[in-house]
Amino acid sequence: MQRTWERLYTLQEAIERTVNSIRLQLEVVEKDLWDCNNSILAEDIIALHDMPPHDRSTVDGYAVIAEDTFGASVFNPVRLRVKGLLHANDHPEKYGAVNHGEAIEVYTGAPIPPNANAVIMYEDTRRVNNYIEVYRPVSPGENISKKGEDFKKGDILVKKNTKLKPWHLSAIASQGLKKIKVFRPLKIGILSTGNELLPPGSKRTTLSYVYASTEYLVKSMLDSLGFTQTTYYGIIRDDLGELSKILAKAFSENDFVITIAGTSVGRSDIIPDYVENNGEWIVRGIAIRPGKTTSTALVDEKPLFSVSGNIVAAWTAMEAYIIPTIHLLLGIKQDPKPMVEAILTRRIPNTVGYRTFVRTFLFKKDDQIYAKPFTIKGSNIYTSLIKTHGYIVIEETLEGVEAGEKVKVYIHNPF
Amino acid sequence: MQRTWERLYTLQEAIERTVNSIRLQLEVVEKDLWDCNNSILAEDIIALHDMPPHDRSTVDGYAVIAEDTFGASVFNPVRLRVKGLLHANDHPEKYGAVNHGEAIEVYTGAPIPPNANAVIMYEDTRRVNNYIEVYRPVSPGENISKKGEDFKKGDILVKKNTKLKPWHLSAIASQGLKKIKVFRPLKIGILSTGNELLPPGSKRTTLSYVYASTEYLVKSMLDSLGFTQTTYYGIIRDDLGELSKILAKAFSENDFVITIAGTSVGRSDIIPDYVENNGEWIVRGIAIRPGKTTSTALVDEKPLFSVSGNIVAAWTAMEAYIIPTIHLLLGIKQDPKPMVEAILTRRIPNTVGYRTFVRTFLFKKDDQIYAKPFTIKGSNIYTSLIKTHGYIVIEETLEGVEAGEKVKVYIHNPF
Repeated sequence: MQRTWERLYTLQEAIERTVNSIRLQLEVVEKDLWDCNNSILAEDIIALHDMPPHDRSTVDGYAVIAEDTFGASVFNPVRLRVKGLLHANDHPEKYGAVNHGEAIEVYTGAPIPPNANAVIMYEDTRRVNNYIEVYRPVSPGENISKKGEDFKKGDILVKKNTKLKPWHLSAIASQGLKKIKVFRPLKIGILSTGNELLPPGSKRTTLSYVYASTEYLVKSMLDSLGFTQTTYYGIIRDDLGELSKILAKAFSENDFVITIAGTSVGRSDIIPDYVENNGEWIVRGIAIRPGKTTSTALVDEKPLFSVSGNIVAAWTAMEAYIIPTIHLLLGIKQDPKPMVEAILTRRIPNTVGYRTFVRTFLFKKDDQIYAKPFTIKGSNIYTSLIKTHGYIVIEETLEGVEAGEKVKVYIHNPF
Repeated sequence: MQRTWERLYTLQEAIERTVNSIRLQLEVVEKDLWDCNNSILAEDIIALHDMPPHDRSTVDGYAVIAEDTFGASVFNPVRLRVKGLLHANDHPEKYGAVNHGEAIEVYTGAPIPPNANAVIMYEDTRRVNNYIEVYRPVSPGENISKKGEDFKKGDILVKKNTKLKPWHLSAIASQGLKKIKVFRPLKIGILSTGNELLPPGSKRTTLSYVYASTEYLVKSMLDSLGFTQTTYYGIIRDDLGELSKILAKAFSENDFVITIAGTSVGRSDIIPDYVENNGEWIVRGIAIRPGKTTSTALVDEKPLFSVSGNIVAAWTAMEAYIIPTIHLLLGIKQDPKPMVEAILTRRIPNTVGYRTFVRTFLFKKDDQIYAKPFTIKGSNIYTSLIKTHGYIVIEETLEGVEAGEKVKVYIHNPF
């Protein structure tokens, strides 16, 4: 049977249909903070204490009454008696209050003793036995971090559904928390289909066989998100029975499954055959270039994403559709993408109705960045991803982008 | 003894001195391709075969002699006899050559049979038994991917010292390679120092104790690079003997060590004491704000990086100095950083001679992005990293950046 693409969805429609058809509810687990880099927070983290917990010095120097230093200069230093030295872990009242004419030495992070309202840095003083000479005035509040100025007890420190970055972990640790609630990893099964595929590491007897390679792209792109757990189920021959068996296993062990290749309308068609027997299409083809054959079905309420075996088509499906959809389904924001604005060196035509992803080189000339499109056609060109620096997105409404226009280039390789 | 900062190095000088003083030579290991995402390649990967290995179809359709289709239209279709069907793994000569008046059906990826020089897509034909009607002309070469057009046998596919991304892994897999040579992970020991520190998860009896938190930032920033192996050695009391013992162990197990806190000139000084007994300073203080106390010593030819215990100072040291230095030492490029250009909402002053890192909020108004500087001072303000979106770098030569100026903002949190 020859199937045809009845109607392609726009990328926006495809994402909306998928998000509206699927529910992903990940269980909450308690995890050690050390293991939470890039995990998704499953609770609001509420500050348990003010930060700083008391007024403290932000420098090494002397806690003083600011007014005592007014008028101080190198020619007319102010002399203060030093009553003691406070470390970061000392009690603020260890040496009592600072009275007029007095100072208490403080290390960075030390509490500010009663009455003191400023800290003068070492370099603006000279120590003579138990006295200091102060060479310049300090204003009230200078070099003091006020109790609670960073955040206050009860503030939401980190919001639920934040993808945790190193600074979030530190802020959580500052509250003394060691175990936090995060969502368990998103589990994704991946498999390749196609009689022509050989696994890397095996011997090829004829050039008609192709080494399976797109699964490395798909799996590593998902692993790079930092909150997934991916399993590869190998190469499945174009045999519906075998496919059904492996897919049943993959579905039982994962939140969803991605199949690579076998999606093209004219091909051996085992993915469409499988879906028509076991589920229903949500999205059957997307108006993106490359990646038109990208499709999604629902099988027992779990999503089955099908991407092309051609590397650039699979990459576009992942970058433009599957990864954004995962973030929407989980209610989290994507990490910011590196992007530069550049001048296009030559016209790129577009077929209206398609969103087109064009890989480009980037180069600098006279302080201006230029984007030079990669010209070898085809969704199976490895060098279009490994030799280029980034990609341009051309919207569905455009017939093309002209030479000399300013374009946004999303960067995938350093330049 | 009160130590002073004799002369701060500029960031550029500090990086150069460090790179020139240290040698990092990581051993080469053989690793399974599945485990190589973000690993550093230790060999050039040379293409073993042309890609594609033969001319092949980029679509599902019929391989034809292009000249046979010239003049074809819906009103005047060309009729061709279909001799067979080639799958991706078939031999190109399975059905012999395509002669005038003939076509061979081809699936995507199938080899192009002899004499055929174009492929016409299904949608431009109608199948009637063993014949097709062709409704439009195709040009020679249309829908054919030429042997070797992606890359040729002997080409360098991926260069030594590339940090491997998902597309590199796919390109390597396409050559049938399963094990490749990469550098072993960079091993880094991390420890915190300070009598005032408590580990998260322990009970705090007085607010004068502070939960150690900066180690989460330092370790996770290094883990995020993808090619490191970090070990945390805990909180070391301000005791030179204990520090020396733990540092000896950390140096023996790692390529270098990062100590957190204990670097300030007025503080308990155990890191300076240790360095002066066991090694020599390469960099003692850097003219960056925050992060001035950042220092590096050489101990038995291994680097000891010292960063402040204050979170923002430690972050600046990592982001501006240690991470760029690691990349230079290993001869690899940093991943591109997300950056936007924005209009500054208010003046930021700078002390000439310092490179200053100012965290900012980002917001959009009327299609323009604005950067609003975070105003709470101090290098220990957690919210300055967790609530902001990015940071601005102010060069050493500037007295400030004016409101309304266009600035580059490097993004650390999505906005």
